[in-house]
Amino acid sequence: MTSPGRGRFITLEGGEGAGKSTQARRLVAALSACGVAAIATREPGGSPRAEEIRAVLLSGAAERLSPVAETLLFAAARADHLDKTIRPALARGAWVVCDRFADSTRAYQGALGGVPDDTLSAVERIAVGDTRPDLTLVLDLAAETGLARAAARRGQGEVDRFEQESLGFHQALRQAFLRIAAAEPARCAVVDASGSEDAVAAAIWAEVARRLRPSADAVAARSA
Amino acid sequence: MTSPGRGRFITLEGGEGAGKSTQARRLVAALSACGVAAIATREPGGSPRAEEIRAVLLSGAAERLSPVAETLLFAAARADHLDKTIRPALARGAWVVCDRFADSTRAYQGALGGVPDDTLSAVERIAVGDTRPDLTLVLDLAAETGLARAAARRGQGEVDRFEQESLGFHQALRQAFLRIAAAEPARCAVVDASGSEDAVAAAIWAEVARRLRPSADAVAARSA
Ligand SMILES: Nc1ncnc2c1ncn2[C@@H]1O[C@H](COP(=O)(O)OP(=O)(O)O)[C@@H](O)[C@H]1O
Ligand SMILES: Nc1ncnc2c1ncn2[C@@H]1O[C@H](COP(=O)(O)OP(=O)(O)O)[C@@H](O)[C@H]1O
Ligand SMILES: [Mg+2]
Ligand SMILES: [Mg+2]
Repeated sequence: MTSPGRGRFITLEGGEGAGKSTQARRLVAALSACGVAAIATREPGGSPRAEEIRAVLLSGAAERLSPVAETLLFAAARADHLDKTIRPALARGAWVVCDRFADSTRAYQGALGGVPDDTLSAVERIAVGDTRPDLTLVLDLAAETGLARAAARRGQGEVDRFEQESLGFHQALRQAFLRIAAAEPARCAVVDASGSEDAVAAAIWAEVARRLRPSADAVAARSA
Repeated sequence: MTSPGRGRFITLEGGEGAGKSTQARRLVAALSACGVAAIATREPGGSPRAEEIRAVLLSGAAERLSPVAETLLFAAARADHLDKTIRPALARGAWVVCDRFADSTRAYQGALGGVPDDTLSAVERIAVGDTRPDLTLVLDLAAETGLARAAARRGQGEVDRFEQESLGFHQALRQAFLRIAAAEPARCAVVDASGSEDAVAAAIWAEVARRLRPSADAVAARSA
């Protein structure tokens, strides 16, 4: 999956308010501090055309899309994000830290939207191909806590349509992410996201250091 | 494929300037005149969310999407168009005349964009399911003639990015549509689109009358 000179691909997953955006920024800062070139990006979005699609996806203005239509729309954005941002960065040796990726489609459109597994797998194969994450950090948090954090953040920015769903929806979402992590333990690490920002950042760094050895990568890059 | 009480699904395909939009309007008028409820719709678009996606698809503003990303984006729009417009109309017994549909994806993204057949089939299965057209009219015309017609129309409206492609592109497109029609003769009829609007409308009506028997449908609807 990884090859020498190629960067590593890390995704952050989890419910609303779990701390994905916060920790994506912190992880990129930590990688840079130890000499690893790294970029933060996010989904949906992460490239100019994918950001246009993001606006369509998150608009609550018109009628709701079906979960299948949503799956295809996320996949279109993902294909462009991979082409224009993620693969070029990995190819030049940079590490990519992505705030949400294909597991969010599996959780939201699959587990909660009822899109069948074989549909999700077929679309993922087409949109993602071989560029699977090397490591996925699932930030795990009680739905109530995440929603309270998201509500506190609201002063700072937009509310999208997924944040407006019920508590039961967000509890089911948490379970969906835990099932995804349990099914692929070699790729996924569940991180307790209930602690302070510093505590979560430390837990993430421990997983990244143990699994992907960024300092060895930085040493190799310097001596190359 | 068809069932009593369900409308018929007719698509119009072909290159730029072949007369699809013109003939879609005329066919709906002809069906209505013989007592068959019919609607005209178009792709990409045809429902409020799909029209939002159309704007993203046809914008040449930002970087080009890859053919695979385009395929997924067209499919997302198509899934919503089917859910919100086409299937409800067919279910209430109306005939649907659609200006472009899945064969345009096969021609533009497949034959010309290089997206593999199995990818196109997988995406079509997901986006379209069982709602395949009962009849597809392929309007066949020399690329030069179609481009000249589209150029003359330009005073009247928008130029999209596909119209700006080379003559060779449009010649290959014509061949792609002819191959699609040859592969599925039970569904597709090739119509010579080089004559006058009236002549093309008459050729289309002959195919529709012979294959789908709209007057029998209108009689059945009146006596039901
Ligand atoms: N560990 C934490 N403890 C308390 N608040 C946090 C923590 N991590 C992030 N926050 C705050 O909670 C809100 C949601 O965090 P954010 O990173 O935007 O979550 P997400 O991207 O997963 O929705 C923000 O206002 C952020 O500052
Ligand atoms: N049979 C025809 N002969 C000449 N001009 C035509 C014919 N059919 C349509 N046109 C004109 O050619 C232009 C393109 O037709 P249109 O229906 O918009 O094609 P399409 O939708 O296939 O691109 C329009 O200006 C239309 O009025
Ligand atoms: Mg966030
Ligand atoms: Mg047209």
